[in-house]
Amino acid sequence: MLHLSGHPATTSLVRMTDLTGKKVAFLLKRGVEQPELTEPWATLESAGAQPVLVSEEPGTITALIHDWDRGDDFTVDLTLDEADPADFDALVLPGGTLNSDKIRNNPQAIAFVKAFFDADKPVASICHGPWIMIEAGAVAGKKLTSTTRISTDLKNAGADWVDAEVVVDGNLLSSRSPRDLPAFNAALVDLIGRS
Amino acid sequence: MLHLSGHPATTSLVRMTDLTGKKVAFLLKRGVEQPELTEPWATLESAGAQPVLVSEEPGTITALIHDWDRGDDFTVDLTLDEADPADFDALVLPGGTLNSDKIRNNPQAIAFVKAFFDADKPVASICHGPWIMIEAGAVAGKKLTSTTRISTDLKNAGADWVDAEVVVDGNLLSSRSPRDLPAFNAALVDLIGRS
Repeated sequence: MLHLSGHPATTSLVRMTDLTGKKVAFLLKRGVEQPELTEPWATLESAGAQPVLVSEEPGTITALIHDWDRGDDFTVDLTLDEADPADFDALVLPGGTLNSDKIRNNPQAIAFVKAFFDADKPVASICHGPWIMIEAGAVAGKKLTSTTRISTDLKNAGADWVDAEVVVDGNLLSSRSPRDLPAFNAALVDLIGRS
Repeated sequence: MLHLSGHPATTSLVRMTDLTGKKVAFLLKRGVEQPELTEPWATLESAGAQPVLVSEEPGTITALIHDWDRGDDFTVDLTLDEADPADFDALVLPGGTLNSDKIRNNPQAIAFVKAFFDADKPVASICHGPWIMIEAGAVAGKKLTSTTRISTDLKNAGADWVDAEVVVDGNLLSSRSPRDLPAFNAALVDLIGRS
């Protein structure tokens, strides 16, 4: 029987998997849901990983809050022309309706995403992010979750869609909305730590 | 051989089908693509029809331009609680990513849309609008178009998706984007005039 609360070192070990040396790509564009970018990003940095913002064009990305109110601007680290999937240990696809809807129409972005699935590297996606994986042909037969608004599209693409805070199927991690971020972030660190 | 240009009365007859007495529901919410609301609306009014703005809540709807810049606010005429599909001759589903994405998650809105298909009344949709028809189970086996960004979702739902300015399949009319509005509007008047 474990008593984690009485063992600070063990608690710390469980809570703070060391991800030093791990590079994690965040693929996004204008309209990304801000906390779905900033919170996993901060969690990964706390764990020692290096998050990298990848987008189509250089410059900055304007985030939205609740898919409507203007959020902050975030600097693009690498364009899709510059970013090589082989340099990364994992991929995060934040949501935001406008962000996900536009990314899925870019064949270069879809090829970038597909490379992570082909290499069986961790891919984590939340809210509308899984839309992008439909275009990469990566959801058929996979158990996953998302915002209910795209559940029909995911089921029609062959996914085993479930309504759950966090779903992990192999190296694929998914959550539904910003409310699930605490569980999503914990599962993200765990998944990358195990990979 | 027809010489329409030499016959003003005939030209007028072709160009301005009289839709007096026809009531047309526009179902939308926040984030609707402004010209996809205002241009078909103005065209129908010019032809004598009565367009009616239907939405979930009373008040006003803020439109967007190019899915990003704030447009104007439009007054809701009837809520879904107040609107009876039986009172309308046709339905228009404008696009806008945020608009269409949110509407499809409202069962009352989907029931409203489904009633037009069940009664075989004209339904016209543009850009992201056809997403809503996926949820109404109305696209399987239908020939239609839309923005390319949702073409995979429509194909996965069983639609015969094509890339064309205007597609008419029975009482279902569809176009791809605001650029197609002149052709969409002409086909809309024609479709409602024939129904």
